[in-house]
Amino acid sequence: MTKKALVIIQDGIGDRPIESLGGHTPLEAAKTPNFDRLAEKGICGMMDPLSPGIRVGTDVGTLAIFGYNPLRVYCGRGPIEAAGVDIQMELTDVAFRANFATVRDDGLIVSRRASRIREGTSALADALNEIRLDDGTEVIFRAATEHRAVLVLRGDKLSHMVTPSDPGPDMEGDRVLDIKPRLAQSAAARKTARLATEFAVRAREVLLEHEVNKERIKKGLLPANYVLLRGAGIKKPMRSLAERFNIRGACVVGESTVKGIAKMTGFTVISDPAFTANLDTDIVKKAKKALEALEDFDIVMMHLKGPDIASHDNNPAEKLKFIEAVDKACGLIISESEKLGGLVFALTGDHSTPCDIGEHSADPVPVVISGPGVLKDGVCGYGETPCLSGGLGRITGNQFLLSILDLTDVTYRFGS
Amino acid sequence: MTKKALVIIQDGIGDRPIESLGGHTPLEAAKTPNFDRLAEKGICGMMDPLSPGIRVGTDVGTLAIFGYNPLRVYCGRGPIEAAGVDIQMELTDVAFRANFATVRDDGLIVSRRASRIREGTSALADALNEIRLDDGTEVIFRAATEHRAVLVLRGDKLSHMVTPSDPGPDMEGDRVLDIKPRLAQSAAARKTARLATEFAVRAREVLLEHEVNKERIKKGLLPANYVLLRGAGIKKPMRSLAERFNIRGACVVGESTVKGIAKMTGFTVISDPAFTANLDTDIVKKAKKALEALEDFDIVMMHLKGPDIASHDNNPAEKLKFIEAVDKACGLIISESEKLGGLVFALTGDHSTPCDIGEHSADPVPVVISGPGVLKDGVCGYGETPCLSGGLGRITGNQFLLSILDLTDVTYRFGS
Repeated sequence: MTKKALVIIQDGIGDRPIESLGGHTPLEAAKTPNFDRLAEKGICGMMDPLSPGIRVGTDVGTLAIFGYNPLRVYCGRGPIEAAGVDIQMELTDVAFRANFATVRDDGLIVSRRASRIREGTSALADALNEIRLDDGTEVIFRAATEHRAVLVLRGDKLSHMVTPSDPGPDMEGDRVLDIKPRLAQSAAARKTARLATEFAVRAREVLLEHEVNKERIKKGLLPANYVLLRGAGIKKPMRSLAERFNIRGACVVGESTVKGIAKMTGFTVISDPAFTANLDTDIVKKAKKALEALEDFDIVMMHLKGPDIASHDNNPAEKLKFIEAVDKACGLIISESEKLGGLVFALTGDHSTPCDIGEHSADPVPVVISGPGVLKDGVCGYGETPCLSGGLGRITGNQFLLSILDLTDVTYRFGS
Repeated sequence: MTKKALVIIQDGIGDRPIESLGGHTPLEAAKTPNFDRLAEKGICGMMDPLSPGIRVGTDVGTLAIFGYNPLRVYCGRGPIEAAGVDIQMELTDVAFRANFATVRDDGLIVSRRASRIREGTSALADALNEIRLDDGTEVIFRAATEHRAVLVLRGDKLSHMVTPSDPGPDMEGDRVLDIKPRLAQSAAARKTARLATEFAVRAREVLLEHEVNKERIKKGLLPANYVLLRGAGIKKPMRSLAERFNIRGACVVGESTVKGIAKMTGFTVISDPAFTANLDTDIVKKAKKALEALEDFDIVMMHLKGPDIASHDNNPAEKLKFIEAVDKACGLIISESEKLGGLVFALTGDHSTPCDIGEHSADPVPVVISGPGVLKDGVCGYGETPCLSGGLGRITGNQFLLSILDLTDVTYRFGS
């Protein structure tokens, strides 16, 4: 019988020593008796999502712990978002991340996220999905969470080598950028830049007249009158986990990027309106869904965005509190899963996000793998410092997942 | 605010246990309270310049800790020496390391280094720089330190795939070798071998008649009457550190190969006649220059050749003594740099050179990274044995530099 595996992914879990926590990290300072129990019964180590010294985004870090080599399969953020909203991309499509924004006629951005618009975006997206471009290139436009959306261009000879119109999150108040080919000599890149610009112009016309925006203006809200584009990318062929190892995977998640990656890699996404991709997510419900999923799936990933959110807000106290709540949910899983027997239970993150810098870093992520067949290394706590001397040593995100799959006896030999 | 970084590179620092030192290495046996303080406050580990088990030269090891993958950018020693003497190579040039030598008419080498000639080499080089080859290929010849010089051939269809005329340092007393194409089928290699041979013949004519040599003979010194060639290489395109991370780097150094690599990679070279690339170098002055450089630069490398020189001389006592002197200078930097705040301070070497074998080895190099944001791993001394259990684990030269840059928060994300 193959064993089952459960992996808790705490986004941005790794941190650096923090003065206000007595020189400890939030994970070290937090009371985590359940994590520590897993550490004590299992093997610990430090995980570099890609390679020591390389900072990664959530997309690349998550691809790595889902067992895919980001250097081979990473294709830009657009296609991940497209997978997240269930657009079946073709290999010739180009996908963009899109934001509903508020932009003045002169191009000045009033709000990059249309004041974080939440309501009416589906109706807006439906209207934009009707746009037909002059040369017949097909438009697929779909709303994602809050102000986010996805644009896919489907047609001949398109390229993802184009620049964004979105000046980025640090540039609030700046102007819309011209979309340009990244390779001036590429006819496909020039064509894609032209089509994306044409879409933006048409989209503005549609949005200015849209009922949702008229209502927003009446209510004194900023209208979502522009679509900012970025993260152009193409789909790369990827074999699902089932194809590679003949196993079924599920991902319990609220966050859209991780949802997209889960879908791209053949995981079944288990979500719920209570999974907010924020600090107010329902952690206990996630744990229960993960336990349920273990009945039907061979490997279950449970993703929590909270630690990353608190870290970006430079808030170690909030990070610590969230971690303690995850630890409690972990205790629930431990006591319930004892009935299952043979569970390989692992703890990780997609990357580190030190609260002091409020940004992702290349600091390796502490990890634990616990369960039958695992050597104990003498490390008795889950934290950055204890894991430094863990028996796993220093491994990559891919190696972490493969080690778990190996313990569940679903992998196969290289050689004979 | 980004933090600044200082890296002390002790050439050939790593060693093996030595009987005369009670089974300790020179670094372990040396009294190094300042290095140990950095280790205690920081994180330690073992660094393989390229990969475990691979012996490297100073050129390859230095490229690695300057953040470049030698497998991609290494191009032979000639181009590094050319950069060291400020020759701006073109991508079609071939560069050779050159030695002024004393050679008899029958080709027997009397002295591979013309008794380590120090004076008059610029005048000799100027004369050789005037040589015009039959087919119009341009000659650029420039003196380097002591008996060393650089030859660059500039013309059409040249190749670096040619053998040396220099039989090498272990072959003193042997004969000048014929320069041959390494690929017989390559017309460019055949042409380059022919041109390099033509240069050597012309150079001998010029040198035999040169005033500097007539003076030397009068004084009873060996004449520099021949130019031995080796290390043919081409330039590979390299993005500078400033281009990659938008930071300014400086290298405090006396040794010519490291100077060349620093220049190739966009570091500003800070040198001084007192920096001898030997055991008599002015270590304190180097430390002061490094401290000064920290005001203007984001990362400063301070290179010391001493440990490698002592190791090649099979002299552990001398190596130990030099290391203790570097430790004292390190103490000066520590006390001065406390004013700076936020300094990431690291210790490394370009490779190991065990005194017992008097040759580079693949033994990994002990390293320390200390400063704000660094996890402490419990290692309290800088030495091969304590660093074996360091929290950095076993990393490569590239990973070592990237980890330092990550701590100074100048790196960027892969992914979003």
